[in-house]
Amino acid sequence: MTNVVAIQLESDGQIKGWIEEIERALDRYSQIGDQSPELLTQAMRYSLLGGGKRLRPLLVLAACEMCGGSLADAIPAACAVEMVHAYSLVHDDLPGMDDDDMRRGKATCHVQFNHATAILVGDSLQSLAFELLAGELTANSNVTPVQAVKCIGLLAKAAGCQGMAGGQQDDLMANSLPATETTLLRIHRRKTGALLSVSLEIGGVIAGASQLQLEKLRDFGQNVGLAFQVTDDLLDATGDASTVGKRTRKDDTKGKLTYPAMFGIEESRRKAAELIQQAESCLQSFGAKASHLQDIARFVLERQQ
Amino acid sequence: MTNVVAIQLESDGQIKGWIEEIERALDRYSQIGDQSPELLTQAMRYSLLGGGKRLRPLLVLAACEMCGGSLADAIPAACAVEMVHAYSLVHDDLPGMDDDDMRRGKATCHVQFNHATAILVGDSLQSLAFELLAGELTANSNVTPVQAVKCIGLLAKAAGCQGMAGGQQDDLMANSLPATETTLLRIHRRKTGALLSVSLEIGGVIAGASQLQLEKLRDFGQNVGLAFQVTDDLLDATGDASTVGKRTRKDDTKGKLTYPAMFGIEESRRKAAELIQQAESCLQSFGAKASHLQDIARFVLERQQ
Repeated sequence: MTNVVAIQLESDGQIKGWIEEIERALDRYSQIGDQSPELLTQAMRYSLLGGGKRLRPLLVLAACEMCGGSLADAIPAACAVEMVHAYSLVHDDLPGMDDDDMRRGKATCHVQFNHATAILVGDSLQSLAFELLAGELTANSNVTPVQAVKCIGLLAKAAGCQGMAGGQQDDLMANSLPATETTLLRIHRRKTGALLSVSLEIGGVIAGASQLQLEKLRDFGQNVGLAFQVTDDLLDATGDASTVGKRTRKDDTKGKLTYPAMFGIEESRRKAAELIQQAESCLQSFGAKASHLQDIARFVLERQQ
Repeated sequence: MTNVVAIQLESDGQIKGWIEEIERALDRYSQIGDQSPELLTQAMRYSLLGGGKRLRPLLVLAACEMCGGSLADAIPAACAVEMVHAYSLVHDDLPGMDDDDMRRGKATCHVQFNHATAILVGDSLQSLAFELLAGELTANSNVTPVQAVKCIGLLAKAAGCQGMAGGQQDDLMANSLPATETTLLRIHRRKTGALLSVSLEIGGVIAGASQLQLEKLRDFGQNVGLAFQVTDDLLDATGDASTVGKRTRKDDTKGKLTYPAMFGIEESRRKAAELIQQAESCLQSFGAKASHLQDIARFVLERQQ
């Protein structure tokens, strides 16, 4: 599957270069060697490489650059966030969860390998993310142990029961929650928002950003995160499976609580645009340095996958 | 279920106190508040509290004490290791893995709650372990960020594809591997040995142990880890489900590669005793300070659950 972000942001040669850099680093960090069972490494790499928008690592790099940090310093953390994202997709697709057989235009991990291996792929990718933050992040870099500990704490909280995993739990139980916008907001803040938002914060921490800057990054992230979820719901409701890279119309089939189901397609589009506008306004004080983050925000609004 | 370790080590009032301290800390650290979905928190606490030998956290504390560190400083790391252990049990019991319905004398997590929640419980406990190491471990303690980063890197590696998760993958595929002692050793070094061994190393790191001391701790841990697995296999082969707290004879039913299957009961017992002797010899240079670790090693040999 072609990387649509790369195409849409192709005019921005720098972001294209970042994506290539992220792909290379993910490839390098997932070459575990003979200390890991071969099939497990293979399944981890299958789930991590060759596909995906790389939105979260791009946010880490863009936030780090905007706050004056070194991109090379941010690469391990960018990859760690992507590993957590990749693990969550593998587990979300499991038979005991959403039971999906297609992801990023190819068979999901448990279909391609087997059920037990897919569980272990998710578990191992999460461990590898923290191994990276405790190892590569401070090796040959300007990142101090204090900054590394901060990044690890942020990622752990955003990934766990108060963040992404908690959001998935809410989502699975959404039918028993009141079908209101408040419920929808609560689910998405955790399920998608937490990891997107923390990507920006981690980029800021690595750059040594001030508290005020970190707050702006968090606000930007929350808005982009919600917009991302609205456009995700819209793609499920209106997109074509071959472009989106996964089964569509599944929300509707499951009677899932989504923005289009609650507000209709047009109103959802308007909401997404409004959220991106709000996100962009969080970056005003950064001036021209915010241009890459602005580009990424606009991509979230206009994306086709 | 009564905590048999506490009874067997009751003559050692200090270890009994440690177990109580660990239980209290696990209870405290798993009170997440309303930021986590209620059912998820409840299921995490169900899987983490009220049962378990607490062997790994005891090893963290005993190693830290032996190397002259402060026990209070080691409590968060002790709990983090136990959370990783607890998560691995929840995932090992899943229908897609060993499909067990009983653990520590009660229903396994996916039976008591549901399949999806059990997956998320494991995922969230792993995140929480790293959150603890990045937060509580350095808060109001003598542990520096450098030490915390070291502990995080060690735990992440021991938990992931090169350690515990890799060992579980090997174990699941053991039927396709040659039925030799080498295979058995490789599986157990990763599946059980890695986390037991790293518990000791983490205790040492927190105490500021020397490289030589850390090596001795690792060697001790590898031997105790293997002995633990041999006695685990022996309990499965000869123990009573109500004492052991989980279904027994399941290895035999599955035709699993185990020590008793390969060498017989008596020879396996001899091997376990020999491993514990080897373990104890690693502690010679620590003199009388090693007494708690010696007690724990002997418990591993004589345990009934």
